[in-house]
Amino acid sequence: MNSQLYQDANSIIDHAIESSRPGNAVIRCLKEAPVSAERIIVISVGKAAWSMAEAAYSILGSQISRGLILTKYGHSQGPLPGFDIVEAGHPIPDENTFAGTRQAMAMVENLTPEDTVLFLLSGGGSALFELSELSVQELQDINAQLLRCGADIQQINSVRKRISQVKGGRFAEKCAPAKVIGIILSDVIGNRLDMIASGPFLPDTSTCEQALEVVENYDLQLSEKAARLLRMETPKSLGETECHVCGDIRQLCGAALEKSKELGYETIFLTDCLTCQAKEAGAFLASIARTHVGDGRKMAFVAGGETVVRLTGSGLGGRNQELALAAAPGISGLPNTAIFSIGSDGTDGPTDAAGGYVDGDTEEVLKAQGIRIADVLQENDSYHALLRCGGLIRTGATGTNVNDLSVVLIG
Amino acid sequence: MNSQLYQDANSIIDHAIESSRPGNAVIRCLKEAPVSAERIIVISVGKAAWSMAEAAYSILGSQISRGLILTKYGHSQGPLPGFDIVEAGHPIPDENTFAGTRQAMAMVENLTPEDTVLFLLSGGGSALFELSELSVQELQDINAQLLRCGADIQQINSVRKRISQVKGGRFAEKCAPAKVIGIILSDVIGNRLDMIASGPFLPDTSTCEQALEVVENYDLQLSEKAARLLRMETPKSLGETECHVCGDIRQLCGAALEKSKELGYETIFLTDCLTCQAKEAGAFLASIARTHVGDGRKMAFVAGGETVVRLTGSGLGGRNQELALAAAPGISGLPNTAIFSIGSDGTDGPTDAAGGYVDGDTEEVLKAQGIRIADVLQENDSYHALLRCGGLIRTGATGTNVNDLSVVLIG
Repeated sequence: MNSQLYQDANSIIDHAIESSRPGNAVIRCLKEAPVSAERIIVISVGKAAWSMAEAAYSILGSQISRGLILTKYGHSQGPLPGFDIVEAGHPIPDENTFAGTRQAMAMVENLTPEDTVLFLLSGGGSALFELSELSVQELQDINAQLLRCGADIQQINSVRKRISQVKGGRFAEKCAPAKVIGIILSDVIGNRLDMIASGPFLPDTSTCEQALEVVENYDLQLSEKAARLLRMETPKSLGETECHVCGDIRQLCGAALEKSKELGYETIFLTDCLTCQAKEAGAFLASIARTHVGDGRKMAFVAGGETVVRLTGSGLGGRNQELALAAAPGISGLPNTAIFSIGSDGTDGPTDAAGGYVDGDTEEVLKAQGIRIADVLQENDSYHALLRCGGLIRTGATGTNVNDLSVVLIG
Repeated sequence: MNSQLYQDANSIIDHAIESSRPGNAVIRCLKEAPVSAERIIVISVGKAAWSMAEAAYSILGSQISRGLILTKYGHSQGPLPGFDIVEAGHPIPDENTFAGTRQAMAMVENLTPEDTVLFLLSGGGSALFELSELSVQELQDINAQLLRCGADIQQINSVRKRISQVKGGRFAEKCAPAKVIGIILSDVIGNRLDMIASGPFLPDTSTCEQALEVVENYDLQLSEKAARLLRMETPKSLGETECHVCGDIRQLCGAALEKSKELGYETIFLTDCLTCQAKEAGAFLASIARTHVGDGRKMAFVAGGETVVRLTGSGLGGRNQELALAAAPGISGLPNTAIFSIGSDGTDGPTDAAGGYVDGDTEEVLKAQGIRIADVLQENDSYHALLRCGGLIRTGATGTNVNDLSVVLIG
C-alpha cells in the first residue's frame, strides 16, 4: 500500500468530515438568525440529532422549554439537560420510531402563535421520524420493498410521505399556530428541501400521481389500506415556517478540494450529485485514474453524491465500499494511484466502516488470498474483501451526514 | 433544442473525426518508416480497410505486388488497382469472412525473407479476419454468446484467439519467413497491441487459462471441439515483425479538446479508457453537467472509451445512443447543457446513426409524445426515441474507428 497516498487520503477525509460537523453549522446558523420566543420546543431528528441538539442547547440554554432527540441506535452521546432522547431503527423504522414520533406530536399540541418549534433535521430523518395508520410491520415491509427495488430517494420519499402522519408537511400542520423554524443538514442530492427527511415541515411538491407511478414501475406489493393512503394528498401550503440549510454535500466536496490543494494536488471537481450505480461509478473513476496516471501531475478528482447498490448477493458491504472495491481492477498495477469513497456519517451500509480505500496493489493482494473481486461484487461482499487487504476506512459515527465523498488521488 | 450548443457539438464531432481519418495517418506512418522489399503484399482488414489501403497505394503504388481489402458490408469505396476486395459480416463473421481470410492465407504462402507483408489493421478486424476449424455457424453462435454476455473486449478476444486459425499471432506464423509490418488504427482501449483485432501478427499475451475463465464466468455453451481448441496455446514469440500505431482514442479525445478550446470552452479531459455500462456513464456525465451548469463558465468535459450495453430488451440502438439518452433525465430542464456521444466509425450498434445528442429539453420533448426514457432504456430502444426528438447524430460511415467520444457541453 502506498503510504503517502494513504496518509493524504486520511487527511482529506478528516478535514472534510470535521468541516461538516453539525454542531458548528447549527451554532453559526443560530447566531446569524437568532431565535427568540415565549416557549421554544426543540425537536432534533436524524443521525446527527444529538450534535445538533447539543449545539442548539449551547446557544439557547434555558430558553428551551422542552426538547426531544430522535436518533439511530447508538447515536446518542449521553443525556442533555431538558431533552428526552429516543433511539430507534434505521434504515427500517420500528416501534421506538413510532413511540418517539408520538412524543414529538404530543409536545407540539396546544401551542400558541407566540411559541416556536425549532426543528433540527439531519440524514436518516425519513426513517427516524415516522408515525402511520399502518402497522410498524407493514411500514417496514413497504420500506424494505422501496429500499430494495432500485428507486432513488426522491421516488422513495414520494411514497413514504403519503403513508405517514408526519411527513410531507403534515407535522408542521400539527404545530400550527406556532412558528416553525427548520435547520437542515442536508443529505438530499440537489437540496430539494421538501425531500429532506420527506419534509415534515415543508409543503410537499410531490404528488399522489408520482407515488402511484413508483408503485407501478417497481411493482410494489401494497395492502388496500396503504393503497388508499397513497391517494390522500399532502399539504401544499403551510403557516409561518422558515428554513435554513446549514451544511450539504457541496460543502463536503469543497472541504475535500481545499485539503487536496493544500497537500499539493491539482484539483478537479467532478460532481456533487452523483447518483449512478456504485460499481459503475467505481469503474468510471478508475478510468479517470488510468488516463492521467502517466501525466506526471499530482491530481485529485473529487465527486460527491449518493450512489446506488444493486443487490445480487447476500454479503456485507455498503455503497462506498462497493464503489472503492469496484475501482480496484481498473487501477491494478498502477503506481501512485488511489481511490477512496466514504459516507460522511461514518457508517456505510450495515457495517462498522465509513467506506473503502483501494490502490494499485489491492487486486493483487486479494488475488494472493484467493479472492476474486468480480465474485465479491457479485455477492455484494465488499466489506470482507476490504477487511482482508487493509482497505476499510473506519471513522466511527461522525455525527454528521451530508452524503458521500469519492476521490481519485494520483500522487 | 439549443442551436448554439448543437452547432458546437457538430463542429467538435467533425473536427475529431477528420483528424482521425486513417488515410492521413497511414501516409504519415509510411513516410516516417518507408517500406521497401522485393515483393510487398498488402492486406488491409477492418472497417477502415479501404481508406488505409488507398493511402498505402498512394505511397507505394506499383511496388505493391498483391493487395487484399477485407472490410464490412458497404464499407468499400470502389475498386483499387491491384487489390481484391471482400466485404463480409460484422460484428458476426459469415461465409465471406472465411473466404476472404482463406484468400489472405493463400497470398502469404511460399514467401521469402526478401518479401514483406504490410498488414493494415483497423477496428472490426477481429470479426472480419477469421478462419476456424469450427463452422461459421458455431463461430457465429460463440460470438453471439460473447457479445451478449457482458464480457469486455479483452475477455472476448482471449476466447476468439483460440478458436481461430489466424488470430493471436497465428497469421504471422503463416507469413514466415517474410517480414511482417503492421500499421494499426487502434480501437482497443489502452492500446494493448496483441488485443487489437485479436493480434493476427503479434505474440499473444493472453492465456488458455484466461479464456477458460471467461467461459466459466459467463457460462458460455461450447461444443467439445471448441472446448478442445481453447486448450491449444497461441504463439508466444514470432519472427521479424514490426508494429506502428497510427491513430487511437487519445488522439480522438485530443482533437475534441482542441476544437472545444477553440470554440471558447474551458476543457477538462476526463478519460480515454471509459469501459463501464453505457447507461451509468450517461448518468455520471449528467451529474457532472448538473453540478457545473450554475457556475457561469463555458465548459467541455471530454471522455473517450468504449462502454458496454446490458441487453434487457429487443429494441434498436447502440452504446453511444444509449449513453446519451440515459443522460437526458439528469440534465432535464437545465439551460445551456448538452451531452453527446458518438462512435468514431459513424455506425453505433446495428443502426445508421453514429450516436446521440441530448440537452435540457430532450426529456420533455419525449414526454410530450408519451415516451418515457426509463421504458426506452429497458427496451434498449434508444434509436427510436432519439429519432423522435431530433437527437440522432448521423455522419455516415467515416472510414475510421478509434472508439467512442462522449462530451458534456455547458455553454
